[in-house]
Amino acid sequence: MAQKIKLSTIADALGVSTATVSLALRDSPLVADQTRDKIKEHARAIGYIYNRRAASLRTSRSGIVGVVVHDIMNPFFAEILRSIESELDRSRQTFILSNHYDQLEKQRTFIDTLLQLGADGVIMSPAIGTPAADIQLAEDNGLPVVLIARTVEDANVPVFRGDDSYGIGLATNHLISLGHTRIAMIGGTDQTSTGRDRYHGYVMAMEKAGLPVSPEWRIPGPRTKQGGFEVAPQFLALIDKPTAAVCWNDLTAIGLMNGIARAGLVPGEDISVTGYDDLEEAAIATPALTTVWNGQREVGLRAARALLDQLNGVGAPPRQELIKPELRIRQSTAKPKNR
Amino acid sequence: MAQKIKLSTIADALGVSTATVSLALRDSPLVADQTRDKIKEHARAIGYIYNRRAASLRTSRSGIVGVVVHDIMNPFFAEILRSIESELDRSRQTFILSNHYDQLEKQRTFIDTLLQLGADGVIMSPAIGTPAADIQLAEDNGLPVVLIARTVEDANVPVFRGDDSYGIGLATNHLISLGHTRIAMIGGTDQTSTGRDRYHGYVMAMEKAGLPVSPEWRIPGPRTKQGGFEVAPQFLALIDKPTAAVCWNDLTAIGLMNGIARAGLVPGEDISVTGYDDLEEAAIATPALTTVWNGQREVGLRAARALLDQLNGVGAPPRQELIKPELRIRQSTAKPKNR
Repeated sequence: MAQKIKLSTIADALGVSTATVSLALRDSPLVADQTRDKIKEHARAIGYIYNRRAASLRTSRSGIVGVVVHDIMNPFFAEILRSIESELDRSRQTFILSNHYDQLEKQRTFIDTLLQLGADGVIMSPAIGTPAADIQLAEDNGLPVVLIARTVEDANVPVFRGDDSYGIGLATNHLISLGHTRIAMIGGTDQTSTGRDRYHGYVMAMEKAGLPVSPEWRIPGPRTKQGGFEVAPQFLALIDKPTAAVCWNDLTAIGLMNGIARAGLVPGEDISVTGYDDLEEAAIATPALTTVWNGQREVGLRAARALLDQLNGVGAPPRQELIKPELRIRQSTAKPKNR
Repeated sequence: MAQKIKLSTIADALGVSTATVSLALRDSPLVADQTRDKIKEHARAIGYIYNRRAASLRTSRSGIVGVVVHDIMNPFFAEILRSIESELDRSRQTFILSNHYDQLEKQRTFIDTLLQLGADGVIMSPAIGTPAADIQLAEDNGLPVVLIARTVEDANVPVFRGDDSYGIGLATNHLISLGHTRIAMIGGTDQTSTGRDRYHGYVMAMEKAGLPVSPEWRIPGPRTKQGGFEVAPQFLALIDKPTAAVCWNDLTAIGLMNGIARAGLVPGEDISVTGYDDLEEAAIATPALTTVWNGQREVGLRAARALLDQLNGVGAPPRQELIKPELRIRQSTAKPKNR
């Protein structure tokens, strides 16, 4: 990496001090925005590259925050990430991303990379099976951790997620209030806290209404459109012929609706379907999807702020914040029809 | 960052040399996989963090590759990224991502970050308006650049993308062969090479078939489902009542089909719609989407390999490779119906 231009060259050209140039290139708040922009623009024009890597060995902040989730391409995480990103942008933090695909080893490699880079912190939706020790190791090495979407037992760090048991109860109760009594639950896994909480919330709502819960009505697995689509024949072949499906998330629900349509039935008329998350796409699906708003933007915003507060020394004890979901009623749910 | 454990502690515990430990922690191919895994596992267990940041000041490779695109959450890029990721994984490169949202400043910040980190290279779909000088600056500072999806005039670096003009011609010709004569083109922008090539391909196919091209049949803009959905009323109100729409991408097409359905018409019967990209989702949409396979996996694979070849000193001159798209006929296109 060539770096022969000196700070004094930039300082002389612009008639400012070398110290000002140095501070400006490090985005110090001590330099006025306009001056900083002028200095950075000039530095760029003459081909100067500020060496953050060397600088971060001297100063305590690298300006880098890592984010690792199951799958960035899942719109649920995408919406959380957009909100984290806009909050970090305001603080001039750079944001680097990675997927762990629920592989502990991939998650560890990314955390190691962040440690090696001297990153300022990590926001993560922990991979299935993440031990509290992995989180402790990061914290012990000076990398603050904030969890989103899922929690890890015994990890003493902030957690921001939706109240899954309550949220799935809203969807289940809505179907019950329309007159459905045979309601399946499609998708998700019981290996995560989210999965266990949602299944528990569905069972609780059914039992509270005095309705039976057949074990075969639980079809775990799907978390994507493809998964929801593929499971449609299995759902439609259930011997009790459920009239409604509470789905793990909007993707599963939209896929299931496509699969129901492919089988010649009309989702929202012949079969009621609910989603979970209220992705942007839910409102424009055919039919528009009844779902549970899951506060993705809130989760992202609060997680980013909690991390920034920690970096700025604004002490707050680690906390678990549950965001209260809300029901969004649209066209994919109706009174039950005989099948 | 605490780091008091010495390499010799690990070496002594496992009965290997300090040099072997050092090489293993740097993922050197000189150490057998099994030995490397054993060393890394033990190092982790005792809380040792390999300091890649300091090490990369001594050695020439950091093991980090950056990827920056318009929007990671767009499934078109997601499919390219999956393929880049699996190729880099095999070479034990770590992969960090960022969005530029077509903002030059965001793209520059990410490239600066990569330079500061001493990253090994960057694969990018350049932001609208990227000057060749930005790419040259990165290359001059030792950061090899590979472009995907879009090209930058006068940039002398490898480019991997689909043949957009040819691909959109396949979709347009398919509609013409079904008997459509009034065909609109929905979505995309003329500010990118991709956008200009696709519009050109559509106009060429129409003219070759002796069909008129009304300027009002071009509705630029939408690139998302939401965008396609919102533009449906404008499309349906066109005075000539086109019987078919060639869409910019699958997302726009799926959104448009949802908008057509919302207006009480049946996409694939009343109006034919084609997509572009052949996302996984295209095959399970309702109706299943006729579209153009755009070789996302090929683009990702070739871009990753081109970069790795460069890093490994396997010299190949910069090249532009156009991947040949293919038509995928499904249920969203049929003979025209009078409207």
